[in-house]
Amino acid sequence: MDSIKFIGEVQSTLKEIEECPLQEDEGAPSVTIRIYDAYQTALSGLAAGSSIILFTWLHRAKRDTLTTKPRNNPKAGTLGIFATRSPDRPNPIGMHQVKLIKIEGCLITVSQLEVVDGTPLIDIKPVI
Amino acid sequence: MDSIKFIGEVQSTLKEIEECPLQEDEGAPSVTIRIYDAYQTALSGLAAGSSIILFTWLHRAKRDTLTTKPRNNPKAGTLGIFATRSPDRPNPIGMHQVKLIKIEGCLITVSQLEVVDGTPLIDIKPVI
Repeated sequence: MDSIKFIGEVQSTLKEIEECPLQEDEGAPSVTIRIYDAYQTALSGLAAGSSIILFTWLHRAKRDTLTTKPRNNPKAGTLGIFATRSPDRPNPIGMHQVKLIKIEGCLITVSQLEVVDGTPLIDIKPVI
Repeated sequence: MDSIKFIGEVQSTLKEIEECPLQEDEGAPSVTIRIYDAYQTALSGLAAGSSIILFTWLHRAKRDTLTTKPRNNPKAGTLGIFATRSPDRPNPIGMHQVKLIKIEGCLITVSQLEVVDGTPLIDIKPVI
């Protein structure tokens, strides 16, 4: 076990989990993410127009879930959560490939993100 | 801040960081990962031959690094670490797309992985 650090926070019009699409290409809105001041230096070199992978910490997920029915479909077969993208998992890491639209100081705007307002950000990686 | 749970551990012939390729497609060996008993149920539905994304916790990384020179090249320009794949970052999450070769109980074997022996595993997601 170790600790995870929150590096920023998503600001979204999605206020409730029920409003969130299951994947970012299913109607998710553009959002702004506030990176905490301590990490602003680490954004250097990121450019508008590039594709990046955001990692979020889906803080409302259930961390003791081990099996699920994919896409909340009651008729689907039960799968282990490592065979699904369910947010309910031991470490609720969300992975989102998005386009970086704008970067201004500690605020970054991305094309689309399907997580609820206030979701912590934990990492950003370039697409390679 | 929150806690990260280790769900398994990589068993590799790579014993020192200096032996590890920078990316998995640069000569990394096939490895076996031991999933801890408590999480075996969560593997259900994963099948040999499929592509999966492994998330590791690069436990030997420096978590206070904010800028770096990519690929350890002293002649490269300095970049913020979020513009790079450096393991040294606030949350040292390694992301690795691999082929699942074999799954036997709590042991899974994958095509190639560039991390050192003993590296904790924190998540598995299917490629979609």
